[in-house]
Amino acid sequence: MKYKIALLPGDGVGEEVIQQAKKCLEAVEEVFHHEFIFQIGVIGAKAINTYETALPKDTLRICKNSDAILVGTIGNHKFNNNPVAEVRPEHGLIQLRKELGLYANIRPLRIFPSLVDKSPLKADIIKGTDMLIFRELSSGIYYQNKEDATKAQSASDVCKYTEEEISRIAHLAFKAAKNRNNRVTLIDKANVLNSSKLWRKVVRDIAQSYPDVALEYQFVDHAAMKMIAAPNRYDVVLTENMFGDILADESSMISGAVNTLPSASVGEKQALFQPVHGPYTELKDKDLVNPVATILATAMLLEHFRLFEEAMAVREAVDKSIAKGIVTKDLDANSQYGTNHVGDFIANHILGHDDRINMNNE
Amino acid sequence: MKYKIALLPGDGVGEEVIQQAKKCLEAVEEVFHHEFIFQIGVIGAKAINTYETALPKDTLRICKNSDAILVGTIGNHKFNNNPVAEVRPEHGLIQLRKELGLYANIRPLRIFPSLVDKSPLKADIIKGTDMLIFRELSSGIYYQNKEDATKAQSASDVCKYTEEEISRIAHLAFKAAKNRNNRVTLIDKANVLNSSKLWRKVVRDIAQSYPDVALEYQFVDHAAMKMIAAPNRYDVVLTENMFGDILADESSMISGAVNTLPSASVGEKQALFQPVHGPYTELKDKDLVNPVATILATAMLLEHFRLFEEAMAVREAVDKSIAKGIVTKDLDANSQYGTNHVGDFIANHILGHDDRINMNNE
Ligand SMILES: CC(C)[C@H](C(=O)O)[C@@H](O)C(=O)O
Ligand SMILES: CC(C)[C@H](C(=O)O)[C@@H](O)C(=O)O
Repeated sequence: MKYKIALLPGDGVGEEVIQQAKKCLEAVEEVFHHEFIFQIGVIGAKAINTYETALPKDTLRICKNSDAILVGTIGNHKFNNNPVAEVRPEHGLIQLRKELGLYANIRPLRIFPSLVDKSPLKADIIKGTDMLIFRELSSGIYYQNKEDATKAQSASDVCKYTEEEISRIAHLAFKAAKNRNNRVTLIDKANVLNSSKLWRKVVRDIAQSYPDVALEYQFVDHAAMKMIAAPNRYDVVLTENMFGDILADESSMISGAVNTLPSASVGEKQALFQPVHGPYTELKDKDLVNPVATILATAMLLEHFRLFEEAMAVREAVDKSIAKGIVTKDLDANSQYGTNHVGDFIANHILGHDDRINMNNE
Repeated sequence: MKYKIALLPGDGVGEEVIQQAKKCLEAVEEVFHHEFIFQIGVIGAKAINTYETALPKDTLRICKNSDAILVGTIGNHKFNNNPVAEVRPEHGLIQLRKELGLYANIRPLRIFPSLVDKSPLKADIIKGTDMLIFRELSSGIYYQNKEDATKAQSASDVCKYTEEEISRIAHLAFKAAKNRNNRVTLIDKANVLNSSKLWRKVVRDIAQSYPDVALEYQFVDHAAMKMIAAPNRYDVVLTENMFGDILADESSMISGAVNTLPSASVGEKQALFQPVHGPYTELKDKDLVNPVATILATAMLLEHFRLFEEAMAVREAVDKSIAKGIVTKDLDANSQYGTNHVGDFIANHILGHDDRINMNNE
């Protein structure tokens, strides 16, 4: 089959991690006889520097014409401490989500047994953690007001949700739970917020159609505690945009290996995949950054194409690299391996997939 | 001196923990020759059952006439999963904050050396953690809209801040930092929210008046990670209402002993003190709940009265109880001590304060 994949490396280490992911996709191409057509687009700070916008028209066109989008990392410290910056690197991503109608951000949290000790949490606390977070991505407090806060003596933002916006992501979450451990935790602040009350009402009604799935409610402040105290109690987590932003990042710390975590952002037609970590500007071009998160983002991308065996080949190769200690320094301070070496190992392992399958069949 | 203290036990274990706190205040009264005049008010679910409102007029009157307010715990599971409940126990607290103009919630995070192992985080991660969180409490997304979400197909909330609202709590935070480690971390989402941009602008300007205090900025999603990865890097944390609700609770988990943590909510005239933990309805009347958080809330209350020696006597007594293992089962599963015994031990230790002082002087 033929697939068009947009590659948006972005800023910082984005270029390097995308290169490793591309190697792995090319290995999949070869082993499984697909054709991946890559198109490159600029986004983020790099785009601002040349085009004065974080999402140039060309990039948007490439994305709209593709079957899936793989993003590197976006952002630059230069913009962070400037409250009056009108254009910001991250706006490229936010705008892309809006333009493509990406309404669900999906964040799997998986613990690699050999990396358990990397977590700031104790091993017995994180043991068995296997969480899938559904964060609403198209609405809430992210997109409403456009006033210029820096000139006013007051500033406001509006958090708004419609039944339709809540219902479409809720269905995704319940469907996912059916294939997992049959539990959905809705996280909100229904004791204070109108929008949260609507979430509870809509989700409670939808739960009726999934009689096998248990629905529980948690207030966001309580959830922020429980995520640390007992992360392994969660199965599928469902929440709105801003709470999801906070809780997904909080939970990513639990793994102790945030640089292994991918995320997917899906809409009716399009889907975008990226690592959870940031641009690590200080690591740029040093062959130090961990490519695993971006490589696992390609596994999610392949699953989106319903290429399950292919995705499994990528995951197996990653598991192998981690189990064998072929990892970057962030996962093992004594490691001598760089970004490229880890990428090569994983790609080569995918290339060997055919042989191993044949051997097993003989 | 004479002080009027309103006691609002609230729901669940509130009554029991307030009793222990009162014992300690009475011990302080005796040792330091003050007069504390206690007045009791109902609030929360208990108030709803009798008065159909979570904050009866009488309770508000008592609070307005007092020099400080000590609250137990508020809430009842019965209300939590009902999205259409119009009156809720917590609204008593929210309304009280509004009526009394309590605009700053102050949450100290202190680790008891002998309780380090209770934390879900590793000992070397939490070592040295000493954080003071200033959460804006009077505004933001908490108080704006009054629409009935449950009847509409969409629902919204407004997060609004004025310069004045930001500035008054920012000054409190910077003043506190001057007496601590000279660092303020402002946590916001300035890459997305108008209100956060205003926070950055106002706080950046205020920082000029505190040249010894370093100001840093963090996005809330990043902060949710850092709180777990390196809690000991924070000194004073400053943030808006909703983010503060989430981050303060997240950080309370770090201590591993959330039942030892107090909080203060202060305004121009009034101040309210309470434990961080919830009503633990299932522990009610079992002599099992830990009274330490509420007792340490009285230490904050005494400091608010500028009774520093008195506050120190309470803190010392608590330290002693914990160091000696005179604790409830939540802190030591093998402990045989109940709520009352721990309260008595601490109160008696305060009563002995005089003798120890005299001994030291001899
Ligand atoms: C960069 C930022 C605007 C973005 C968000 O808040 O959604 C990021 O934190 C994320 O989670 O993808
Ligand atoms: C009970 C609830 C409304 C309250 C809040 O969100 O402020 C509580 O969580 C707190 O932090 O005091």
